[in-house]
Amino acid sequence: MAAGDVKLLGYFSSPFVLRVRIALNIKSINHEYVEENVMSKSELLLKSNPIHQKLPVLIHGERPICESLIIVEYIDETWTSAPSILPSHPYDRAIARFWAAYTDVKLFAVLQELRTARGEEAMGNIAKKMSEGLFPLEDAYVKCSKGKTFFGGESIGYLDIALGGILAWLKVIEIMANMKILDETKVPNLVKWADKFRQDPSVKGVIPAAEKLIEFFSMFTANEQAAKN
Amino acid sequence: MAAGDVKLLGYFSSPFVLRVRIALNIKSINHEYVEENVMSKSELLLKSNPIHQKLPVLIHGERPICESLIIVEYIDETWTSAPSILPSHPYDRAIARFWAAYTDVKLFAVLQELRTARGEEAMGNIAKKMSEGLFPLEDAYVKCSKGKTFFGGESIGYLDIALGGILAWLKVIEIMANMKILDETKVPNLVKWADKFRQDPSVKGVIPAAEKLIEFFSMFTANEQAAKN
Repeated sequence: MAAGDVKLLGYFSSPFVLRVRIALNIKSINHEYVEENVMSKSELLLKSNPIHQKLPVLIHGERPICESLIIVEYIDETWTSAPSILPSHPYDRAIARFWAAYTDVKLFAVLQELRTARGEEAMGNIAKKMSEGLFPLEDAYVKCSKGKTFFGGESIGYLDIALGGILAWLKVIEIMANMKILDETKVPNLVKWADKFRQDPSVKGVIPAAEKLIEFFSMFTANEQAAKN
Repeated sequence: MAAGDVKLLGYFSSPFVLRVRIALNIKSINHEYVEENVMSKSELLLKSNPIHQKLPVLIHGERPICESLIIVEYIDETWTSAPSILPSHPYDRAIARFWAAYTDVKLFAVLQELRTARGEEAMGNIAKKMSEGLFPLEDAYVKCSKGKTFFGGESIGYLDIALGGILAWLKVIEIMANMKILDETKVPNLVKWADKFRQDPSVKGVIPAAEKLIEFFSMFTANEQAAKN
């Protein structure tokens, strides 16, 4: 398939976009990655996702698909050759979807608080909430992985992607709050999982460095401050 | 399969529970329906959905599955004989999932406002927001149904179930706000769709009457008032 047939509209700092990049890598799908300007959204983005006007958008042929986890399922169902992203058994799929939804509702809600949090105390609160939000996932990892490396078995799957998308931002919060979130004394299995995840060939080249995200965050808050003055 | 193998924990007023009841009916799955007491949650519910402690929960064998749309997918993937609930093509599935997520995020958020809304003006605002929330779904219906009766074709599918779960509560808001939401001049296709949906054998016996929901809502607000006094 020519790269032009599959286009991903994305932005480097988005954990949602990262999910899709990882899924495309897992399936070795030749594609064009288009970095959007989030301050001035392209006509293509507005036309492709008129309802939410958000990234990521995958455009396959002429058809846009929106919402990161929906795109990941679409990729798995469209490029059906191995490796599979979703587990094969309906019950395992339901469990993976449950925890992916948990990640979206609980952890991303905490991440959203970064937009307004200023100062070390506010960052500390976010780090604490994020840490607590990981506890149930530590248990879920033990049950889902069944002794294997990833939630999905010996290779990265749906729930790994859903949760892994957030890892770079976890690091940012850890640095800014000066507090461990992926703490070996609290979530030892997730610490090991996160190390393996980051080293995976599908993840390595696309996960943003924490320093780059901190720089982006500083610019974002500085712009916001300038707009207020 | 014996009914005891499939158990649904539910509550009559829940649009989320209704989704699962319709899916079980579509697939003609013999099951036990257990009406929960939402004021005093059962041990079985707390054990089966420890994270959210919410309904519905489907228990298949000994295994609980939570979250209405995840359960609907599980049912479709486990009982694979016709009729199918999800569309067969990955793109159509992605689109159905997109609008189902839209329903959850946009329309259910409006429905949540009922908990605190008191008086005709507040109800009017809810009715107006709900009405506006339906406009994009009117367009989506035209595109998805391709001239057929339901979003999913000639029989009720995933998006029909996702949106249809809310219909009884739309009626409640219409009555309390004294304002049409399913208005033929604004969403003519959805008006026709809703009529067909309500008449479907899988829906008829399980969709609650608006009067019963209004009675429930009055009791809920009266209890709340009593608790404040």
